[in-house]
Amino acid sequence: MAPPDVRALIFDVFGTVVDWRGSIIAQCAAFGSARGIERDWDAFADAWRGKYQPFMNKVRTGELPWTNLDALHRMSLEEVLTEYGIEGLSEDEKREVNFFWHNLRPWADSVPGLYRLKQRYIIATMSNGNIALMTNMAKNGGLPWDAILGAEVAHHYKPDPESYLTTVELLGLRPEQVMMTAAHQGDLLSAQKVGLKSGFVPRPMEHGPDRTPDPTPDPSFDIVATDFTDLARQMGV
Amino acid sequence: MAPPDVRALIFDVFGTVVDWRGSIIAQCAAFGSARGIERDWDAFADAWRGKYQPFMNKVRTGELPWTNLDALHRMSLEEVLTEYGIEGLSEDEKREVNFFWHNLRPWADSVPGLYRLKQRYIIATMSNGNIALMTNMAKNGGLPWDAILGAEVAHHYKPDPESYLTTVELLGLRPEQVMMTAAHQGDLLSAQKVGLKSGFVPRPMEHGPDRTPDPTPDPSFDIVATDFTDLARQMGV
Repeated sequence: MAPPDVRALIFDVFGTVVDWRGSIIAQCAAFGSARGIERDWDAFADAWRGKYQPFMNKVRTGELPWTNLDALHRMSLEEVLTEYGIEGLSEDEKREVNFFWHNLRPWADSVPGLYRLKQRYIIATMSNGNIALMTNMAKNGGLPWDAILGAEVAHHYKPDPESYLTTVELLGLRPEQVMMTAAHQGDLLSAQKVGLKSGFVPRPMEHGPDRTPDPTPDPSFDIVATDFTDLARQMGV
Repeated sequence: MAPPDVRALIFDVFGTVVDWRGSIIAQCAAFGSARGIERDWDAFADAWRGKYQPFMNKVRTGELPWTNLDALHRMSLEEVLTEYGIEGLSEDEKREVNFFWHNLRPWADSVPGLYRLKQRYIIATMSNGNIALMTNMAKNGGLPWDAILGAEVAHHYKPDPESYLTTVELLGLRPEQVMMTAAHQGDLLSAQKVGLKSGFVPRPMEHGPDRTPDPTPDPSFDIVATDFTDLARQMGV
């Protein structure tokens, strides 16, 4: 049953709302095909995403000053291009590839579920993606966010406590009035630690058909839903 | 004709998108009526709004640290209640009155015009109102913003240059790709100074039927529109 005081749902986006892996593979494959570049694009996408946490850690540890995700993606793209022996791309081409992250396909239930939730709740992003990335993705994918919040506004990446608490404060709410929603249990447990409610929506296909999905949901989660339409139903809309 | 490079329109909200005065008067009158408090609510609304610039100036000058508009409205409400001899309200009642600013009626053309503009452009708030205020107002009034930006995200009130430039940067755009849209010429001139395009939509009824509207539009504005549907037409949608 819906936790009684919840006024807003805030969402992890990469993996939870959109299929980043399938979308990056498809766009890279089309880009390569148009230029006669043949690579294992599944592995390329995983390698690029694999640099996500290490690059954010450079910000968390202070090795880099605050740097938004577009810029971190751009730095990690250089590395992965080198690793895959892809040379000679122009600056415009690299920019185009980097912006593939602005164009990720929502899971089939994401848009209809968000429209239902939006009728009763504030729905906002709580992503490590920057505002421009999230705004463009929403326009490309038809995601009806009420507000684009998260890491860039807080100047802290998840799972730093400040990332969640700044977002809660900017919504003018208390932590227990906000439900973090994610396919990643670590994200939910971090949000719980600072008082937020938690909604778990597993996405077993996030890492492709060959990867083991998240194990059994932690029993502490307030909601465990099969997808976003089930989430809406459980939240009473 | 639409400036060729514009990708986003950012909007002043109080007065430009919503009828703050009529909405505050109506809500205060209903609140007073329910409690047998009779006052000149037109004058009360004008007096409260009259404290808007002085209170933001306390932040601009450093007399106050960064303080969002909900908190400034709350401080100025205390003054205006005293001036109008309204005593004995509970904390909950004062909070209710302060939140009247979260529930302002859009002008009749605002919502249809924004839906048209949204088809081709990013549309975002560029208001001195805080994120919670803008988010709640959007839900109450059906305003389909792509992103809620502005003063609170920049930690600078308009017309400080940082307020506009931070918003442009967060959208991942250059100043000339963003059009400031407002009913207030000073707001547009300040945005122009830092390189933004300008769209003027006069709202002659903002201050009620008895007040002189803004004079002739400055000839430097890129677009002068009669309302938001005319603005959409001139922007090619």
